Amino acid sequence: SVNPDLASERQTASFCVEKLTALLDGGAEKTRIRRAVVEAIESDPVFSRENQYFQTQNERYEAAVRKAVHLQKKMHEMGWTEDGPEYKYIYRALSGDVAFLLHRVFMRSISVLGSDKQVAKWIPLATQHQLIGSYAQTELGHGTYLQGLETTAVFDIATQEFILNTPKISAMKWWPGDMGRSATHTVVFAQLYIHGKCYGIHPFIVQIRSLQDHSLCPGITAGDIGPKMNFEHIDNGYLMLKNVRIPRDNMLSKFCEVRPDGTYVRQGSQKINYFTMTTVRISLIADEVVIPLMKACTIAIRYSAVRRQSKLKPGEQEAKILDYQTQQEKLLPQLAAAYAFHFINDYLQELFDRGYREIQRKNFDMLPELHALSSGFKAVITHHSTAAVEICLRACGGHGYSLLSGLPSLYTKILASCIYEGENTILLLQTARFLIKCFMAASAGQPVPPSVTYLAAVKPGKCPAKNKLDFLSPDIYTEAYQHVAVRLISSTAAKLQDLIQSGVKKYDAWNQCTVQLVQAAKAHCHYIAVKNFAETVENLETKAGIQKIMKHLCDLFALHGIFSNTGAFLHDGYVSAAQMDMVTASYLDLLAVIRKDAVPLVDAFDFTDKNLNSALGSYDGQVYQRLYEWAQKSPTNKMSPAYERYLKPLLHNTLSKL
Amino acid sequence: SVNPDLASERQTASFCVEKLTALLDGGAEKTRIRRAVVEAIESDPVFSRENQYFQTQNERYEAAVRKAVHLQKKMHEMGWTEDGPEYKYIYRALSGDVAFLLHRVFMRSISVLGSDKQVAKWIPLATQHQLIGSYAQTELGHGTYLQGLETTAVFDIATQEFILNTPKISAMKWWPGDMGRSATHTVVFAQLYIHGKCYGIHPFIVQIRSLQDHSLCPGITAGDIGPKMNFEHIDNGYLMLKNVRIPRDNMLSKFCEVRPDGTYVRQGSQKINYFTMTTVRISLIADEVVIPLMKACTIAIRYSAVRRQSKLKPGEQEAKILDYQTQQEKLLPQLAAAYAFHFINDYLQELFDRGYREIQRKNFDMLPELHALSSGFKAVITHHSTAAVEICLRACGGHGYSLLSGLPSLYTKILASCIYEGENTILLLQTARFLIKCFMAASAGQPVPPSVTYLAAVKPGKCPAKNKLDFLSPDIYTEAYQHVAVRLISSTAAKLQDLIQSGVKKYDAWNQCTVQLVQAAKAHCHYIAVKNFAETVENLETKAGIQKIMKHLCDLFALHGIFSNTGAFLHDGYVSAAQMDMVTASYLDLLAVIRKDAVPLVDAFDFTDKNLNSALGSYDGQVYQRLYEWAQKSPTNKMSPAYERYLKPLLHNTLSKL
Repeated sequence: SVNPDLASERQTASFCVEKLTALLDGGAEKTRIRRAVVEAIESDPVFSRENQYFQTQNERYEAAVRKAVHLQKKMHEMGWTEDGPEYKYIYRALSGDVAFLLHRVFMRSISVLGSDKQVAKWIPLATQHQLIGSYAQTELGHGTYLQGLETTAVFDIATQEFILNTPKISAMKWWPGDMGRSATHTVVFAQLYIHGKCYGIHPFIVQIRSLQDHSLCPGITAGDIGPKMNFEHIDNGYLMLKNVRIPRDNMLSKFCEVRPDGTYVRQGSQKINYFTMTTVRISLIADEVVIPLMKACTIAIRYSAVRRQSKLKPGEQEAKILDYQTQQEKLLPQLAAAYAFHFINDYLQELFDRGYREIQRKNFDMLPELHALSSGFKAVITHHSTAAVEICLRACGGHGYSLLSGLPSLYTKILASCIYEGENTILLLQTARFLIKCFMAASAGQPVPPSVTYLAAVKPGKCPAKNKLDFLSPDIYTEAYQHVAVRLISSTAAKLQDLIQSGVKKYDAWNQCTVQLVQAAKAHCHYIAVKNFAETVENLETKAGIQKIMKHLCDLFALHGIFSNTGAFLHDGYVSAAQMDMVTASYLDLLAVIRKDAVPLVDAFDFTDKNLNSALGSYDGQVYQRLYEWAQKSPTNKMSPAYERYLKPLLHNTLSKL
Repeated sequence: SVNPDLASERQTASFCVEKLTALLDGGAEKTRIRRAVVEAIESDPVFSRENQYFQTQNERYEAAVRKAVHLQKKMHEMGWTEDGPEYKYIYRALSGDVAFLLHRVFMRSISVLGSDKQVAKWIPLATQHQLIGSYAQTELGHGTYLQGLETTAVFDIATQEFILNTPKISAMKWWPGDMGRSATHTVVFAQLYIHGKCYGIHPFIVQIRSLQDHSLCPGITAGDIGPKMNFEHIDNGYLMLKNVRIPRDNMLSKFCEVRPDGTYVRQGSQKINYFTMTTVRISLIADEVVIPLMKACTIAIRYSAVRRQSKLKPGEQEAKILDYQTQQEKLLPQLAAAYAFHFINDYLQELFDRGYREIQRKNFDMLPELHALSSGFKAVITHHSTAAVEICLRACGGHGYSLLSGLPSLYTKILASCIYEGENTILLLQTARFLIKCFMAASAGQPVPPSVTYLAAVKPGKCPAKNKLDFLSPDIYTEAYQHVAVRLISSTAAKLQDLIQSGVKKYDAWNQCTVQLVQAAKAHCHYIAVKNFAETVENLETKAGIQKIMKHLCDLFALHGIFSNTGAFLHDGYVSAAQMDMVTASYLDLLAVIRKDAVPLVDAFDFTDKNLNSALGSYDGQVYQRLYEWAQKSPTNKMSPAYERYLKPLLHNTLSKL
């Protein structure tokens, strides 16, 4: 039975939920396929996440390995293949709670970086899981700055082997998933030395555990790096190498080879690797960021329609907390952001598919733009979404703080996305470097990539809005965003120039501008996100109320961004104080409008209860019943030795005194 | 041996670290006492937190009970008493990792709300821990809004008993600490009914577990609410009552009594209770918020002086990440905030001591102001500090994400402070209600409490700063903050008036202004925090470089607040765009100045390595060694059944194929 407070929210939806779901999936047929995958996974008890919040790190790891192994059987049984249309839904259906993700990276790196002979040798074994691979790049003392890696691989002509070492503690490999306990092999990135000369970072296949009894191989020290904020199911590991010898054939040699006599040969282009890195950043956005954000919105908004607290009007019953303006102001902008990021992800995917096709035709022209966009959006979307999930958690008060709400684990997991695959600040500075370059080029009248042509058309002007309704015009707010992006990029470029001209060294000048460069890069991405949302809305079908509600969300996304960052728009007077008051009024009005459709808007994300795994977010809204049922299953409801040991001696003669 | 990168930071301190520590402690004698307590606690292995990050919730609970029981012995042994000067340092030395905190609240509520007879009966037993108490107020469906509590206590004249019930699932008591597993008794808050008439919420002592075998008493259902984001050591519990009968004497009856014939008698003033609630909010700021923030700053700043990443200047070794402007911009404002909040806490403590003295003289005039300040600062400081700890965590990259860094548990614990003892948004609205009232009074020429007299002196004017150095003048920035607070309060008051005059009902009008009311309340608190910091600095002794470095931090705290919220200052032109550029320039300059003293500034917090419990934050900066040593102790480095069960069958015949 559905909680009547939630049921009533669904009766007044202004649009067709099923149609919106299909839009998000990219068509009704895809919705059908996705649901079939979800059904198959969720009906299989091996994949259950039911007791997840009660499990220790050891139990989570064991379950993840069990699921990974079982998944192979399942795929075979269901006829799913890695190339099939179902594949992309499996990970989502499992909520990522599965092992051997780095094994896939191991395979991908051999496919991309290995010679045909190496591919033929290793890929079949890896596909069958007859070995478990990992990917050992990051070191205890070295992350983003790859040139700084300290692990060495010295070529020994006499034996035709590479001798691998992690010469210092900071050189120890640290973080690789699947390596702490599972992996038998890994791809180690090390500085290649031949005849005492360093040739830079290269990848080597290294066996680390025995295939007979899983004991560590000679010269190998490895283990698990211990507890983390999340990812309990993954055995992130450490690895020390002491004079570990591997055959010459184990250096992945599609692009570089060491000949038997020690000659170093580089062949082909490495640009494609550079591209691989950028695609990884884009590919994580959907599964690791947007989906978790949608889950958090679903949980917090359903709960807010069920939770009643205080009286809004005297004499009435306590009000749904979703009816308070402050609660709407917390949650609805996050909902709008979830939609905005879904659509920008579509845009980026499309752009990258196009880029990939160009690269296959040996045209690398799009690479700098793609790199800048993937870096910037990875940073902006992970940052914004992490903050959004935290807001959802806090908006649920005490119950949001219970692991049973599902929100803490969504938060602690999404937080990692700000750090992995490139730390966000460093990525934003990469985007900024591209923007400054393009701005200089555009100022000099040179051509620039499509996403930054707006930098060439700097118009001073003022925002033309005359009343609060004008701020519901996409042209008005998109131009305001554009204006801010241009202003921040151009003023930072000017500061940089001034510093250099005043005699400050280039690298010092750059460092002194980095806080503002980060702001400029964010403004650029925010502008593109708003523009893309507005364009997407314009192209939607007007049927079934979809376009109308999406337009509201687009307006909210845009106006929330202005409302939360008024100074950027007011600074040079592009938006006046009176206009800013109109923005505020329109923004607050929109909250009340979207609030009416809030529950249908999260229903459209179409999460099953099992997939949400939240006592607060279930479709039926039976929050209290579920919290109570789940709590009773907690291992903390078993007898503790603390009673016999510590409490009983204290209490034993109280009775006589009462 | 101290990491040389860290040692070099200490050699150039511009001030005397030991003098600053004494200032923070309130005198060198207090520093001595604090250190003696820390030494006594940390040298006792029972209080060790060494393996904390590896323990399950059950293990954490058991350890917390063990420590709580042992603490009684320790206090006796050391001659520490609850009134002595050592007492306040014990909890800090234990990092709060101890049970029976709600037992103290149980005792306090009996002392405050109980009759002399009740105090005489229960307090001695509770002091000796011959019973374990809890405090059962919050329900599954009811938090902040106390009038909404659903638990009932019906007086039965025939038996002279109260019959207690939690009539619905939402009425179940939920969250009380020490209740899930430990407590034998609790104070239950319930709606009192006599002859069918409701007299509102009253407190009742209820026994919930047997003193003989700890089994649940008849009519009682109780247990642990399960896993939370932190507080694994606390057995937060649930409690259902079904026709539980307690003697008439168990209603705490200092202020209200039910006579044997069912007559209800109210006596004395309840205002003191109201005051108790506000003091709790102030008392949590130091231990639960400022100290954790100081710890996070210590960890992140020491790590940033040791971690090297990328090259800042070509040809040099990799740079300390603390030398990057973006890293400084993340961490140094948090450091400044830690000092600002320490000083505002001193101010609030003093104010409350004064308030307490007045109340004892039956003068309740200060109550509304104290309530507004305690609500507002609880919300502002917990919110800001939670965000600050998260920034510290993320600024440490991957290693910050490891539990071994100590940062995840600092974050997940401080986060709860935004929710407990009054949810922050609700508290800010309480402050706002006070501000609107005072603004109206001030506008009408009526007298207002000291902290809001500035509302009467609204000056339009403009910021007089002429160059970036002017923004290092406390008068300049304090007035800017004051101007913004007045503007936000007065404009929201005007909006509220306008809505009501246009016919909107008062409660609707209030709801439509709440987003802006929250902003106004924050601006008020921010202004007072800046003003207090500036005044504190002015009164410091100029010796030993203390005043100079504190002045820098005060400037940074103030300018960071402007830089992060430029729109509020630009809106009506009080600060012009050109002046805002001066603010930015001064702010960025300050980062480079304070960076030089960053490590000494966190050293002054004087945390021991055991108290920090962080692989990244130790005094000697041997980060990598410690991460490696600690990781090896993780239970995830034991053999997992996953190998035999799932991996071995996969790998068993790989050897033949390689």
